[in-house]
Amino acid sequence: MPQQFGPEYVRAIAPYQAGKPIAEVAREFGLDEASIVKLASNENPFGVPESSKQAMAATLSELGRYPDANGFALKAVLSKRYGVSPDWITLGNGSNDILEIAAHAFVQGGQSVVYSQYSFAVYALATQGVGARPIVVPAKAYGHDLDAMAASIEDDTRLIYIANPNNPTGTFIAPSEIEAFLKRVPAHVVVVLDEAYNEYLAPEQQFESSQWVRTYPNLLVSRTFSKAYGLAGLRVGFAIAQPALTDLMNRIRQPFNVNSLAQAAAIAALGDKDFLAQGAANNAAGYRQFVEAFAELGLEYVPSFGNFVLVRVGMDDSAGARINLALLKQGVIVRPVGNYGLPQWLRISIGLPRENALFLAALRKALA
Amino acid sequence: MPQQFGPEYVRAIAPYQAGKPIAEVAREFGLDEASIVKLASNENPFGVPESSKQAMAATLSELGRYPDANGFALKAVLSKRYGVSPDWITLGNGSNDILEIAAHAFVQGGQSVVYSQYSFAVYALATQGVGARPIVVPAKAYGHDLDAMAASIEDDTRLIYIANPNNPTGTFIAPSEIEAFLKRVPAHVVVVLDEAYNEYLAPEQQFESSQWVRTYPNLLVSRTFSKAYGLAGLRVGFAIAQPALTDLMNRIRQPFNVNSLAQAAAIAALGDKDFLAQGAANNAAGYRQFVEAFAELGLEYVPSFGNFVLVRVGMDDSAGARINLALLKQGVIVRPVGNYGLPQWLRISIGLPRENALFLAALRKALA
Repeated sequence: MPQQFGPEYVRAIAPYQAGKPIAEVAREFGLDEASIVKLASNENPFGVPESSKQAMAATLSELGRYPDANGFALKAVLSKRYGVSPDWITLGNGSNDILEIAAHAFVQGGQSVVYSQYSFAVYALATQGVGARPIVVPAKAYGHDLDAMAASIEDDTRLIYIANPNNPTGTFIAPSEIEAFLKRVPAHVVVVLDEAYNEYLAPEQQFESSQWVRTYPNLLVSRTFSKAYGLAGLRVGFAIAQPALTDLMNRIRQPFNVNSLAQAAAIAALGDKDFLAQGAANNAAGYRQFVEAFAELGLEYVPSFGNFVLVRVGMDDSAGARINLALLKQGVIVRPVGNYGLPQWLRISIGLPRENALFLAALRKALA
Repeated sequence: MPQQFGPEYVRAIAPYQAGKPIAEVAREFGLDEASIVKLASNENPFGVPESSKQAMAATLSELGRYPDANGFALKAVLSKRYGVSPDWITLGNGSNDILEIAAHAFVQGGQSVVYSQYSFAVYALATQGVGARPIVVPAKAYGHDLDAMAASIEDDTRLIYIANPNNPTGTFIAPSEIEAFLKRVPAHVVVVLDEAYNEYLAPEQQFESSQWVRTYPNLLVSRTFSKAYGLAGLRVGFAIAQPALTDLMNRIRQPFNVNSLAQAAAIAALGDKDFLAQGAANNAAGYRQFVEAFAELGLEYVPSFGNFVLVRVGMDDSAGARINLALLKQGVIVRPVGNYGLPQWLRISIGLPRENALFLAALRKALA
């Protein structure tokens, strides 16, 4: 028998399944890369803002230097934007990094972590990665059941992940419900509120959750530049929390976790209101384009508050994989979610009108 | 008493002390950024290769997409260069990430990790971050004492870090000694051979340690693009190990840990022999420039095989901090190493001839 390495809980981890890259699909299905439509990873269809490209160009010559380990300039603009001191801010290599750091900073092996069924896959990975015990709370209408989550907290629970809006289902929890939940959570249990899709909320749904951290010392709000800000390829996210939590995050954080270009690009993107507005308008229009077509096709979908829609493409458990393959053959990449326990569903990112139309045409063929 | 969060071993971590950024020194000492010389972080004084800049420019428009989580293209060129299959390769957000992933993948809380006194600070941080017990083996002539390290392995030891050349001391272990050591290490203990400075070795010292992984299933060789390849600001490193270790690393690795620009830039840099040759020549000349001056000044130094030199600037334990401050006031940033238990020493990165001369002039003033 070959030598076994690593703790048992590491050997048990099933690695994250990323959206298929365009180049990989082109290789696998013999397609031209330019003809492929990728609506698989909730990326921004407009790509990187021009403002970020300019900021990066000005930084190119400094890339032989290590990044600023303390992220002085980026924290300064975030600090101003959110009205918190820089020592309330943690920068991450994407918000994925924030979610992982939180597990390592607040939980040790054997303790438990609470999250919802059908919530973001990284919560499970981060929990397993520290040898902690997951408490997975059944979803209610494909979203978080906060009452059940509060009731599920055990003596050894140290961390709760909440996604709002949730990925991959797109559900949304009203601010009043979250605040009621925060009041019920014991003071020693850290709540990570993952708001990767916050910027896609309509103005009337917007609320500044980052201000809750003033009231709740056990709350950490996580945000990303990978979605609405269009910087997925650069890797930058951040967290806001009181200094007690932020200080512990900083002890676990790799000192140079956020590269120099990402820091420069994020500063520019944060101030680019036109880019955000353009993205929000495109997203709202694309959402209508999708749900009208799904209604016409008689397909169930979960009303979404993000930049993607979860749609049920069949009533048998091979439906998701089957339709996904049929779409891939037509050069359309979407996200199967069988690994989330949703084998009858696909998650479709909202793209440009042309991309959405190509997907819908391919879907009609696949369903026929 | 305020609420305490996090495991005790996390609260005990002293975060990494990065080299002071130029902008920070300018702010702190009221200096002009352009006048500051930074020889503090073992960076490449030539900055990013032009070949990498061109590769990045071609990638800019794709940055709205997530990076390739599997690093297909970069692993392909590394695979060819090192004669191993892509499933022997792990990409990291700098080799810092590789070192951290190794701790999380191979060690659990309460087990022990062996490393040398005066070796790279991240070994201690990664060990503490998983709640493991450090076994710190006293150095021999400022370098690794491999006999003592082999003898220090306990039943619960799961990981050993070896730096070759070592940072911050610059010492080098001959290949024959490392191989003798590998033969003594129990098969279930993983050895991480950190070769961040490998490319600075003179041709007669070069050896392909990555080939040892064929013989030793418990060996993981770590390399970086942050030093000789000039990509510190981009964050990219890699590890070579047999699939059993690589597979576990992949379960802990964040899927999008290496950003798209870093992957593109690394591919270009790996093929840029002229850039490496230019850097090696500059480094050898700068090393002579330093050690001749140190000899003239009567300063003890540790013969270095990297792109930096450790020099003893006084015989009292405040010498390092005192001379460092005197250098900072003159706009020269070097690295104090009191946190390594070397308070009488400073570590100086080798820069361009002009930068080296400015440092030496400032040092003469500081010592006077």
